[in-house]
Amino acid sequence: MDKLAGAMGTRAGLALRLAQAIFSVGSLLFMCLDVSVFSYSYAPFCFLVATMGLVTPWSLGLATIDAFLVLVKRPSHQARVLSAVVLGDWVLSVLSLSVSCSTFSVVDYLIASGSPNCRGNICRRYQLSAAMAFLTWILSLTSLLFNLWLLPTLY
Amino acid sequence: MDKLAGAMGTRAGLALRLAQAIFSVGSLLFMCLDVSVFSYSYAPFCFLVATMGLVTPWSLGLATIDAFLVLVKRPSHQARVLSAVVLGDWVLSVLSLSVSCSTFSVVDYLIASGSPNCRGNICRRYQLSAAMAFLTWILSLTSLLFNLWLLPTLY
Repeated sequence: MDKLAGAMGTRAGLALRLAQAIFSVGSLLFMCLDVSVFSYSYAPFCFLVATMGLVTPWSLGLATIDAFLVLVKRPSHQARVLSAVVLGDWVLSVLSLSVSCSTFSVVDYLIASGSPNCRGNICRRYQLSAAMAFLTWILSLTSLLFNLWLLPTLY
Repeated sequence: MDKLAGAMGTRAGLALRLAQAIFSVGSLLFMCLDVSVFSYSYAPFCFLVATMGLVTPWSLGLATIDAFLVLVKRPSHQARVLSAVVLGDWVLSVLSLSVSCSTFSVVDYLIASGSPNCRGNICRRYQLSAAMAFLTWILSLTSLLFNLWLLPTLY
């Protein structure tokens, strides 16, 4: 199994990493830009910012490695490296899922209870941020599954 | 690999399934018993009840199969059955994680905002319910990993 589209070191893998980086940056921007201080008193919002702040450099770093491997046309066949990438993807995907669900539920409650903190479109922006974190989870999981599929063939 | 402790058809696998069933029933009881109607107006609480209502029969059913396989001393070697169990475990573990995080965050907000709906120890009970759903997630994930490890040896 020389090339599995979507695994590390392929064009599809590079596209997945870039999409993860774009969505995590989008999630950070929707959550952080032009927001009053109150939102940082909610734990889920802080965790979302922290998690997306981890996902962004992770995805960008792996995108750089993927771009290099695509340019030299040599998919990575090192089992240890791939195991570390799978483990990192798994941790970050679990974190992304939990923060997106937590943020969704708190924002849903804020809107339903007519909170004065939800004036303007601020709560819609939090929802968009949570939706982008959820998309980041789906993309991380896709990368994880492709690399996990490739892993047993390397041992 | 005839026997992998924790996989389907072993004593450890049976213990994991029983623990999942116990924690999911505990989560349901803490969420449902002697609770006013208001709590069902929150989406995360409803989703928690629905998910734990799925996990309980799933775990009990698989515990019965495990008990049968342990009694006849014959671990399951059918790849299709194990694939279905892995898929089911994966779906239920994702659902368990998301509902436990959602419930935790909403209850945390209710307590922090001094909501009148949190009188007595009711919000502590919701937290216990979410904690039990989280433990159910960890146990589902453990079962999933053991069965996933066994799966490639069957093909």
